Amino acid sequence: MHCGQLTSSQLQIETDPDYGPAPMGPSEPPCSIAATLDVVGDRWTLLILRDLFRGVHRFGELQGDLGIARNLLTDRLHRLVEHGLVERVQYQDRPVRHEYRLTGKGADLSPALISLMAWGDRWYADAGPPVELVHDRCGTPIERQPKCPACDEVVAPGHIRSRPGPGSPVANLEIVDAS
Amino acid sequence: MHCGQLTSSQLQIETDPDYGPAPMGPSEPPCSIAATLDVVGDRWTLLILRDLFRGVHRFGELQGDLGIARNLLTDRLHRLVEHGLVERVQYQDRPVRHEYRLTGKGADLSPALISLMAWGDRWYADAGPPVELVHDRCGTPIERQPKCPACDEVVAPGHIRSRPGPGSPVANLEIVDAS
Repeated sequence: MHCGQLTSSQLQIETDPDYGPAPMGPSEPPCSIAATLDVVGDRWTLLILRDLFRGVHRFGELQGDLGIARNLLTDRLHRLVEHGLVERVQYQDRPVRHEYRLTGKGADLSPALISLMAWGDRWYADAGPPVELVHDRCGTPIERQPKCPACDEVVAPGHIRSRPGPGSPVANLEIVDAS
Repeated sequence: MHCGQLTSSQLQIETDPDYGPAPMGPSEPPCSIAATLDVVGDRWTLLILRDLFRGVHRFGELQGDLGIARNLLTDRLHRLVEHGLVERVQYQDRPVRHEYRLTGKGADLSPALISLMAWGDRWYADAGPPVELVHDRCGTPIERQPKCPACDEVVAPGHIRSRPGPGSPVANLEIVDAS
């Protein structure tokens, strides 16, 4: 389903064994899942983003909350700043102190974290979801499954098909079955 | 926002340096994002799942498509089978051959992969999305942003609040600001 015949990333970032496979060269067809995972495809990075969403912004707080080694946290934050998902903001003059804030690009990962959370809720929360996410205005739990806007219904994985989009180098419009 | 005051996982799996932090003990409050990432929180695992969704089911095909070392692929597939996201199915008698298929639990990660793909589409697909995901019945591109079913509108990250759910050990109903 995802990324049709497309298998690798168009991102040009450094090779780093911590992040799994190196991105392919620019001649490879693009895949937006791989592109995303090139930036946030490791557990620490996603947990740091989760904490920033939760309002944990300072290095020491992040370190304490996650139980992560200083050098790993420094590395992951540096990467997130470098890729524009997080910015380092001075919050105090004397002594100078900084904290980390999500940019618009970082905050835009909210739906992905929400979907990962929904899966954990469904498969590992025997006592029910530990946390509910609600719309601030009305308090209604938000809908986390993909929907068809035309049919106004949740679309199960077996009913999703992929086709080449505007950015695809693939000329034909072959539909790939998700099942 | 996500997981409110909750910081760690209730999963009991082995410690493995490849997968980042070890899950906390059973006395720690649960977090469904951490629970999910304990199982699928590495780039190879998510790329293997993507390929299984795409219809790549055999070891050799997965290896060739991903450019992954045999031992890493074996390890990740074993883990996915162990956690019930993937099953190993015999497809040939002589010689005996197996392939890997998503279970219902594995297929249920579809919304998470779709959300990760949507982020890559928005931030890294300069020429437009390489792939479009559509409803099989009507061909309409599916909606990938969280919606409020009561207000029938997409809810931006800044308008999502969290509150303790049925499975939360936290008694109070303090609302945590997502911004």
